[in-house]
Amino acid sequence: MTYRAPVEDILLALNYGAALNEAIRAGHYRNYDADTASAVIAEAGKFASEVLAPLNRVGDEHGATLKDNKVTTSPGWRDAYQGWVEAGWNSLTGAEEFGGQGLPIVLHAACSEIWSAANMAFGLCPLLTAGAIEALTVHGADDLKQTYLAKLVSGEWTGTMQLTEPQAGSDVGALRTRAEKQSDGSYRLTGTKIFITYGDHDMTANIVHLVLARLPGAPEGTKGISLFVVPKFLVNADGSLGARNDVYATGLEHKLGIHGSPTCTMTMGDNGGAVGYLVGEENNGMACMFTMMNQARLGVGLEGVGIAERATQQALAYAHERRQGRALGYKSGEPDPIAVHPDVKRNLMTMRALTAAARTICYATAVAIDASHQAQDEAAREKANARAGLLTPMAKAFSTDIANEVAALGVQVHGGAGFIEETGAAQYVRDARILTIYEGTNGIQANDLVMRKLGADKGAALRDLLDELEQIVARLNASNDPAFGATGAILRDALGSAARASEWLLDKIGSNPNEALAAATPYLRLLSLATGGCMLARQALDGRTDDALRDHARRRAPLARFLAENMVVQAPALEQSIIRGGGAIDDADMTLAD
Amino acid sequence: MTYRAPVEDILLALNYGAALNEAIRAGHYRNYDADTASAVIAEAGKFASEVLAPLNRVGDEHGATLKDNKVTTSPGWRDAYQGWVEAGWNSLTGAEEFGGQGLPIVLHAACSEIWSAANMAFGLCPLLTAGAIEALTVHGADDLKQTYLAKLVSGEWTGTMQLTEPQAGSDVGALRTRAEKQSDGSYRLTGTKIFITYGDHDMTANIVHLVLARLPGAPEGTKGISLFVVPKFLVNADGSLGARNDVYATGLEHKLGIHGSPTCTMTMGDNGGAVGYLVGEENNGMACMFTMMNQARLGVGLEGVGIAERATQQALAYAHERRQGRALGYKSGEPDPIAVHPDVKRNLMTMRALTAAARTICYATAVAIDASHQAQDEAAREKANARAGLLTPMAKAFSTDIANEVAALGVQVHGGAGFIEETGAAQYVRDARILTIYEGTNGIQANDLVMRKLGADKGAALRDLLDELEQIVARLNASNDPAFGATGAILRDALGSAARASEWLLDKIGSNPNEALAAATPYLRLLSLATGGCMLARQALDGRTDDALRDHARRRAPLARFLAENMVVQAPALEQSIIRGGGAIDDADMTLAD
Repeated sequence: MTYRAPVEDILLALNYGAALNEAIRAGHYRNYDADTASAVIAEAGKFASEVLAPLNRVGDEHGATLKDNKVTTSPGWRDAYQGWVEAGWNSLTGAEEFGGQGLPIVLHAACSEIWSAANMAFGLCPLLTAGAIEALTVHGADDLKQTYLAKLVSGEWTGTMQLTEPQAGSDVGALRTRAEKQSDGSYRLTGTKIFITYGDHDMTANIVHLVLARLPGAPEGTKGISLFVVPKFLVNADGSLGARNDVYATGLEHKLGIHGSPTCTMTMGDNGGAVGYLVGEENNGMACMFTMMNQARLGVGLEGVGIAERATQQALAYAHERRQGRALGYKSGEPDPIAVHPDVKRNLMTMRALTAAARTICYATAVAIDASHQAQDEAAREKANARAGLLTPMAKAFSTDIANEVAALGVQVHGGAGFIEETGAAQYVRDARILTIYEGTNGIQANDLVMRKLGADKGAALRDLLDELEQIVARLNASNDPAFGATGAILRDALGSAARASEWLLDKIGSNPNEALAAATPYLRLLSLATGGCMLARQALDGRTDDALRDHARRRAPLARFLAENMVVQAPALEQSIIRGGGAIDDADMTLAD
Repeated sequence: MTYRAPVEDILLALNYGAALNEAIRAGHYRNYDADTASAVIAEAGKFASEVLAPLNRVGDEHGATLKDNKVTTSPGWRDAYQGWVEAGWNSLTGAEEFGGQGLPIVLHAACSEIWSAANMAFGLCPLLTAGAIEALTVHGADDLKQTYLAKLVSGEWTGTMQLTEPQAGSDVGALRTRAEKQSDGSYRLTGTKIFITYGDHDMTANIVHLVLARLPGAPEGTKGISLFVVPKFLVNADGSLGARNDVYATGLEHKLGIHGSPTCTMTMGDNGGAVGYLVGEENNGMACMFTMMNQARLGVGLEGVGIAERATQQALAYAHERRQGRALGYKSGEPDPIAVHPDVKRNLMTMRALTAAARTICYATAVAIDASHQAQDEAAREKANARAGLLTPMAKAFSTDIANEVAALGVQVHGGAGFIEETGAAQYVRDARILTIYEGTNGIQANDLVMRKLGADKGAALRDLLDELEQIVARLNASNDPAFGATGAILRDALGSAARASEWLLDKIGSNPNEALAAATPYLRLLSLATGGCMLARQALDGRTDDALRDHARRRAPLARFLAENMVVQAPALEQSIIRGGGAIDDADMTLAD
């Protein structure tokens, strides 16, 4: 079956779950037009269903191939990319001075979910381009911007992020690629990078690599790395393409999933060194990298939402088509669709509820990013920036954790057929498995949440978030709507657990940071469940005031209830694990002999 | 890296976790010799490491192939199977009158874990043979036993279970394969079966298919199915092989995992019908099938334990070898092994703790099965039989659920390398994914636990289990050992939750069975966590009295604590989900439009 963009779900999550409507009322958006937004999302859904979704399996089966240092993508992918660029999809949020449409990040987020759902391996390519655009926009000198930004914004060229080396994965500071300054002010780069997504491909005439490297005599670790633009083809003064640069794909990984996305080993310097241009200051590459990565982390979270949505749609369709056994109370003459069996329904609702919660967290992150740029007063921008920082690790890690859970349940709903590759459900399991790893493993996201995002402002941003969530619970309880079951009480307990766990962590960050780190993963889960649970309840509650979404919002109340009664209810146990778990982790050896 | 059988873990789990020592003292074992047992387990580990483990990746890469209705297994597999049979591994628990060694099921369970860990796709073949042996032993007429059992017990021939048809998966009663009686008392079978594991292969001279089919005029549904032996080659009176029977592999599935294990479409009747022989009574096939499946369900649980153990060993080795970043408090000059980072350690401990809990539940099931056959008085046998019935769905579903969780964490610990197929960690994710589906999906196991195992005796077996677990908690609390942290209190809460949830379910089974079914999956998880948590604490506590295992048992106390404080602690939330969850599931539509 193909993918159908869940336009109503997206609009409900965006406007009411992530409270975009409130942000607009608060004046945080200069140029948001609701009708344009709906139209853009619907049109993205159409392109995704018609062009990208049918190529998803083609990419999985063919994969990308490497011959003579050239990568060829799967049949149909080049044309699809060209059509996607021509329709203007790459330039949605780009700056108007470089040909972009200047639309807010929330629309980019909604569309990113849609591309990922239709074809995650395809959608990964513009995700990297967006990171390159962001880094150049924030840190690049004018001449670099003039040379590269318009082509990247349009999508005529794509971007890569070249960080990882064999000995430098999560530990970026351990990288060894060298850059030496030339008399003309450019640099020559030498080294090998691994795991480079779309490091080479045949979909565009040029590729703009953003490469982290080390200058001679640079300080050790992360303080000694610098960021460079290294184009595949050098660019002449008139903008035409010049000589082939000395950066080549020399290997292609054989991966569990996303076969359509080439993961390259890139070698620079076999022919004298790759020409590179410094982005920002020397030895300031780490800051530039974070600029690229923050947007990319939300993007990866949205990939998780997309895959989860796709897996859910396919499982739901199968559960309505496949008939096995007779359900109690459904006495028809023939076997019933498995969707009516209570345990199968539980699986489907788990998939739907986790997806909806993750979507809302990701969109709330996008709203915060928009407000951090566009809010009218600086205090509001700063507050929004802190909120975006707090939500980003949750958007990345929670959404991708649940993407794996949901994809696995999708196979489960299919029974034996799910294990057969032709069914397609297994591909989502394989594709989703990278999401918890790249752009910072989910463990690193959890450490970032605790040590940097919670700790940096001594819990101020966290308390601000919890206050907002408390207000949702108060309004939910005031509504006295039986459709929500025990949701209000469970959410209140969860917020209490989140608050106590946060205070405990704030204390430990200083006094015993290893215990704080040991508790990071359950803390991220707890905070995400509390946040997602409250925001899902908010969209079910507030969406009813919207004429166009009223019926859809009403159908979301049992889902918010299901999430609360089956997942958010775990919050007090997570609080206990946070507070107690570190002890056992400290005591145990986990030596090889264990 | 290769696999090393965790002999001490196995002995500790068997003797103290599953309380084999108590069962022996109670006189439930006629012929158990502890020294023999240790020697057998160690020897199995040696064979597994040296012969089976190296073929695991070969099987994954080559897979099985089909040509002219003949399946060829991967290079080296035929020889490995022959060597395995010659070493006597297939005949461990077979009846002595048919050449078996008559050893108890617990030893078979330990060895099954070991074969599955070394090479799950290989170990699946004898798992099916064991089911065929069991069905023929219990239900077969003497002439069938004489013709087939000795060859199946030795492993010279293998067995299959042919149940599934395209329209008849979980709903076995919907099958359409036809059997017609012939004048000589045999039957002719016509039909197509799918998903038949090792339906054809080149490792043995003959294959003994056990096939469910329907006689003309048989009652509809499960009451009208009969079981037949259908050999690949007919067997002459002198035991030599005769004509090729009309049962052929006509298709081979392209699967997510276990590529080494051929999953066949089997066609009977293209050449006049396959010759079959009735097992048991006509229309009594369902009872025979359950005989095959009960043992197979424990076997699948042990596959889960095996895969989880293998994934844990590989992740642990990698985490000690891979160096990234510096951990707080570990100021060495170079990056630290990632095993010392608290979040990585949490992942490793989660893997180890869940594996240990599942192992103990599976072994306790095996002890109960042995006692149900061998206990001296009938009351003890009946009680053991009820205990085995209660534990079997937990052994199957919990062990395979955690196998998927553990295998996914295994990839996570490897970071980006985990997503690369050559690393090997991804294979465990792919292989494990079938475990929650075959031999009755885990949803069906949960339904079976609630509706048949809990409901059948109005909770008597359940209360008997909870009483035993209460005694563990009492002894644990009396020990006052700080190494266990909050384990005692958490286990006590969990048992309370399990008891209340059970009583609630016992009420609903009669009054609102759909609500009971909706709660089945969280109930199975709750009961498994409580059971596994208590039994893991028991092995850490009681194993210290064993001179040979004392040190190992001491290292298991922090693990029991970690399991309690991080997983068993979820029991009260699961209780709430059970009691409240059905409401949301009943209210929601989960229509396609949702």
